[in-house]
Amino acid sequence: MSEYLPGLAGVPATQSNISSIDGEKGILAYRGYNISDLVENSTFEETALLLLDGELPSKSELDDFDRQLRGERKIKYNIREIMKNLPPTGHPMEMLQTAVAGLGTFYSGSHVLTDGYQREDIFYVHLMSVKIISRMATIVAAWQHVRNGYDPVEPRRDLSHAANFMYMLQGNEPDPMTTRVMEACLIMHAEHTINASTFAAMVAASTLASPFLVVAAAIGTLAGPLHGGANQRVVEMLEEIGRPENVRDWLDMKLEEKEKIWGMGHREYKTKDPRAIILQKMMVEWAEKKGNLSPMFETALELESACENELGPKGVYPNVDYYSGILYTEMGIPPDQFTAIFAVSRVAGWMAHWREQLSDNRIFRPTQIYTGHPSREYIPLDDR
Amino acid sequence: MSEYLPGLAGVPATQSNISSIDGEKGILAYRGYNISDLVENSTFEETALLLLDGELPSKSELDDFDRQLRGERKIKYNIREIMKNLPPTGHPMEMLQTAVAGLGTFYSGSHVLTDGYQREDIFYVHLMSVKIISRMATIVAAWQHVRNGYDPVEPRRDLSHAANFMYMLQGNEPDPMTTRVMEACLIMHAEHTINASTFAAMVAASTLASPFLVVAAAIGTLAGPLHGGANQRVVEMLEEIGRPENVRDWLDMKLEEKEKIWGMGHREYKTKDPRAIILQKMMVEWAEKKGNLSPMFETALELESACENELGPKGVYPNVDYYSGILYTEMGIPPDQFTAIFAVSRVAGWMAHWREQLSDNRIFRPTQIYTGHPSREYIPLDDR
Repeated sequence: MSEYLPGLAGVPATQSNISSIDGEKGILAYRGYNISDLVENSTFEETALLLLDGELPSKSELDDFDRQLRGERKIKYNIREIMKNLPPTGHPMEMLQTAVAGLGTFYSGSHVLTDGYQREDIFYVHLMSVKIISRMATIVAAWQHVRNGYDPVEPRRDLSHAANFMYMLQGNEPDPMTTRVMEACLIMHAEHTINASTFAAMVAASTLASPFLVVAAAIGTLAGPLHGGANQRVVEMLEEIGRPENVRDWLDMKLEEKEKIWGMGHREYKTKDPRAIILQKMMVEWAEKKGNLSPMFETALELESACENELGPKGVYPNVDYYSGILYTEMGIPPDQFTAIFAVSRVAGWMAHWREQLSDNRIFRPTQIYTGHPSREYIPLDDR
Repeated sequence: MSEYLPGLAGVPATQSNISSIDGEKGILAYRGYNISDLVENSTFEETALLLLDGELPSKSELDDFDRQLRGERKIKYNIREIMKNLPPTGHPMEMLQTAVAGLGTFYSGSHVLTDGYQREDIFYVHLMSVKIISRMATIVAAWQHVRNGYDPVEPRRDLSHAANFMYMLQGNEPDPMTTRVMEACLIMHAEHTINASTFAAMVAASTLASPFLVVAAAIGTLAGPLHGGANQRVVEMLEEIGRPENVRDWLDMKLEEKEKIWGMGHREYKTKDPRAIILQKMMVEWAEKKGNLSPMFETALELESACENELGPKGVYPNVDYYSGILYTEMGIPPDQFTAIFAVSRVAGWMAHWREQLSDNRIFRPTQIYTGHPSREYIPLDDR
């Protein structure tokens, strides 16, 4: 039997060609393409298709995919009714798991997967990926309105995935800078090797469960505060600090008490998270273009430079959650929606791993080290 | 880095004291108690509490737990409305995932778990376990009526968990034999070490996600045809055979073509599945008491004895799915509900593993062997 490593840390659970991380050099690549190049040159639509298919698409392949995504943006009134039956206090991630699982009932038994991925499965896998990627954006945006007692904003076909998402979320067409930041965030969060939610998707997929069941399992896992909830915590932390002039004292206190500072450091990266570098630039650009910064934004800039001095030498840098939380807040997005937006992006990676799992499947059934009672005799209730 | 073993076969993912399997001797034990003793002497309520707490309860502990379960049987009309918005063709497992996730939105943020399981968390964990175990039975039974266009049958407080489940499912109080078989099935399916759905629950739990998110992830995994769907397939297979006199020819053909025979063999047991031995006895008893057997039942008996001769010497025996599928059919339960009943039982084990995971948590993040492209240069769309 192999050695027991808690959390399966360092244990290979799959062979994968979807993404890679070089933690020493601070490189994240999807299918071999550096994340910085993708953010600079690509779109979410192209990146999603790259993740799903393995290669950068041709112009006509991309056009087809884009058209398919635009065509799948509507959700049935049943899904809206389901949302209306959830309390407004329900967390967006819990709502999202409910809605995606509910969506799955409409495609029940539409295709039976078998062990041994067939040519004819590819069409199904592609179609379901389109449906789920497209509609998750609609669902998350719709909840913002439904939970406040309003009807959702209908999707528009003339906008890109990122722009339409912001439009549906906020009810007006986003400016180019906002669209660019959302596009970058959707690209950057789409995939990150075998994290807990992707792994949960793989485990569910390995039983040949439907993609809706698989994605709902992944959503349930991403929702945990140790996984997808960090950028929401960053904003709560900044609110706690309050103003830029409080940063130094607050940081000294936290460091002395050895408490966690949200949005700092990453298990995988020994150097600065490449996604954080991109977002940091965008934050500066945002500040220059928009001006009139909120106290939170000023506080974040101050905390960032204080941490750079104090923690940088120890190899601890602000991570992707740090900047995305701040930018989302400036964009007017409520903090409890951050993880749901993460899911709207990450679903592209989940679908890619679903497809990869099917192509060479073996059901996940690790073993355990039994540490419990040896065989013992049942004692009747009256004798206990 | 450890060796790569597909499906993590043989890789220990946890230390656990909940259940153990001796595949050589054919023994399954919960907390050290042999499954045969539990089926003979215990109830589902007592077994669930044993799984959750680790010890057989005292009379007053069991009474409390039983009262709590009975008190949590009702579901909100919101959950019923959600069900009404799902198509009747939706699979019970997809409905169940939707409803459990939806239920979670009503307890959003009711308790925040942190790494480092505290004394005050135990009350929350127990309360949520009661709510989820109790209501999943109601939800599965309710769907049987809602999908046919009828209002669900209200739960009764004067019946045991097993009897009330059958009552809610079928609208009339079950006879003692039916209750006993359902009770035995609920006890026997409640736990089985680290299978795929339990593992998915552990992965989700390791991010400190709420128990509803965790159970919905497990449901999505159990729903896969390679995992929980086998007993439904047994019935479809028996329908395909049609009559007892067709068994021999059908079996010869299948064996010649080396095709899978559903409900035969089990990865963990080298000898007969201990749960199958119990159910086989119940099947014989059922046949004696009820008489007037269906052709499917006769076919099943015939196939069983044919397989015993042909496959027994190779160590392949009918497993728990084989007998449960047949007994459920005789009880008038539609085949697509079998896996949902499995979930109604297994949720006790999932909750026990959730609690165990929290008590010594580390987020699951295995690694991958990257087999993809090395770094490559982005090519602009127009140059492709």
